[in-house]
Amino acid sequence: MDPIRQVAIIGGTHGNEFTGAYLVRKFERFPDLIKRSSLETMALLGNPKAFEVAKRYIDEDLNRCFLEQDLQNPTLSSYEALRAKTLNQILGPKGNSQVDFLLDLHSTTANMDLTLILVNQNPFNLKLAAYLSSINPLVRIYSWTQPGRENSFLNSLCELGLAFEIGPIAQGLLNASSFQKMEELVYAVLDYLEKFNQGTAPPTTNSLTLYQHLKVVDYPKDRQGEIQAMVHPQLQDLDYSPLNPGDPMFLKFDGQSIAYEGESTVWPIFINEAAYYEKGIAMCLTQKRRVQLR
Amino acid sequence: MDPIRQVAIIGGTHGNEFTGAYLVRKFERFPDLIKRSSLETMALLGNPKAFEVAKRYIDEDLNRCFLEQDLQNPTLSSYEALRAKTLNQILGPKGNSQVDFLLDLHSTTANMDLTLILVNQNPFNLKLAAYLSSINPLVRIYSWTQPGRENSFLNSLCELGLAFEIGPIAQGLLNASSFQKMEELVYAVLDYLEKFNQGTAPPTTNSLTLYQHLKVVDYPKDRQGEIQAMVHPQLQDLDYSPLNPGDPMFLKFDGQSIAYEGESTVWPIFINEAAYYEKGIAMCLTQKRRVQLR
Repeated sequence: MDPIRQVAIIGGTHGNEFTGAYLVRKFERFPDLIKRSSLETMALLGNPKAFEVAKRYIDEDLNRCFLEQDLQNPTLSSYEALRAKTLNQILGPKGNSQVDFLLDLHSTTANMDLTLILVNQNPFNLKLAAYLSSINPLVRIYSWTQPGRENSFLNSLCELGLAFEIGPIAQGLLNASSFQKMEELVYAVLDYLEKFNQGTAPPTTNSLTLYQHLKVVDYPKDRQGEIQAMVHPQLQDLDYSPLNPGDPMFLKFDGQSIAYEGESTVWPIFINEAAYYEKGIAMCLTQKRRVQLR
Repeated sequence: MDPIRQVAIIGGTHGNEFTGAYLVRKFERFPDLIKRSSLETMALLGNPKAFEVAKRYIDEDLNRCFLEQDLQNPTLSSYEALRAKTLNQILGPKGNSQVDFLLDLHSTTANMDLTLILVNQNPFNLKLAAYLSSINPLVRIYSWTQPGRENSFLNSLCELGLAFEIGPIAQGLLNASSFQKMEELVYAVLDYLEKFNQGTAPPTTNSLTLYQHLKVVDYPKDRQGEIQAMVHPQLQDLDYSPLNPGDPMFLKFDGQSIAYEGESTVWPIFINEAAYYEKGIAMCLTQKRRVQLR
């Protein structure tokens, strides 16, 4: 594998996720922090206009705008469709990117602590993820891949890279501890890439624990589409814990519980993420599995 | 004092504060829950259009639109200015309100648990607040009054009443535990009013602990108005705890701490409230004091 020469760190792909956005601001002001001898790192706001108004997006979710056909489609004209094309010019083009490694910094209202999101199963990404989770036990690895479906995230521009999530943190605010945790993880990635380039990448374990995306679950709703139940208090904040058939999942406003009716144990994450209400997602169900590294 | 016959419960005065908004939805669906023999209770969404799009407001903060001169001003035409006039028609007019008691339900990203906000020092409100904090030790009482300045909150429409805050909770989501806590507190208020009407109001203590508003503090900013520091990790989530001169208050992005430079101890609240970034408020400083009840 070739050395990694060009790295991009993106924050504020969602404009109200301040942790990544203000980290990018910090890296712009103190560029030495992300300098490494064998590689160049650029730091860049994903959605500057949304960050300015502290909203997730102006017209639509930027982090769903990176399908090949949408990047090629000259008729799309939302602010985010245009911004995606610009990012594709700066970092891409998708499938043949100018940058060798792409780090996209997010936050979530769910209790997911530090999560790495993979949009492919490239062995280098898996090794790096295994390394990061070995140096920080709070780090978990989520593979948001769906067989046969092209990924539309910013990260899909570049074969190598990760998205970071940190939570729980409300939208539109800075939490100093979360900021520091994510900052440390960014430096750990850059240091790893530097050592990889120098042929001294730290050894990793032979396997890693990965939470593989299965499907999303919506809130119970009535015919008018109005929410009829909340995430059950016994499930709230229990991201990455096993949910067994029959366990309480939702609590109706009248006090009645709704149980999980699946056939086998799942591991829910993004439980009660504020930004997913409009997407009809109360949580993502995953399968916990052990993956051998090549 | 006359009996309390007309009560209004408002939720979603800020459209992305779901706890109160969905409580109102629940009371609309199950009106028996807020029925009491001696009084009539209406439940009503404060800002229905903002709730529909899960935003704090459409044009401006509704909960700052209730100055007498603004309610009378025919040239104001923002959605919230118009909505305030409508609410003034339904509940008010300010100074001579149709409703006898007004409960306004809010939530905050700050770690304020259950907070009662008073906009005046009416003895009835103080007694009720003392009662509520006696039955639930998590309840704290904040007096957001500024001498010589008219209050512009929704609550200012009616002499008797309270605002509830619950937190920490992110905007735009439902947390079942917070929902249940606030629901219980609403019923405690209605039960108290019912007993008051029946001449059997429970006795209260002779004094109460009140956090009196002193002033607001902004984030450290540069000349362009960009934030230069975060709330210090040693202050984050410590709402209602004493902050002494010399204690760390903010953490700059370069790692330097900024100390509180006041002359005496204060008790900060609304620490790092997401909705207050745009208002230039990092926290509200209060004075903790013991108040004798008449």
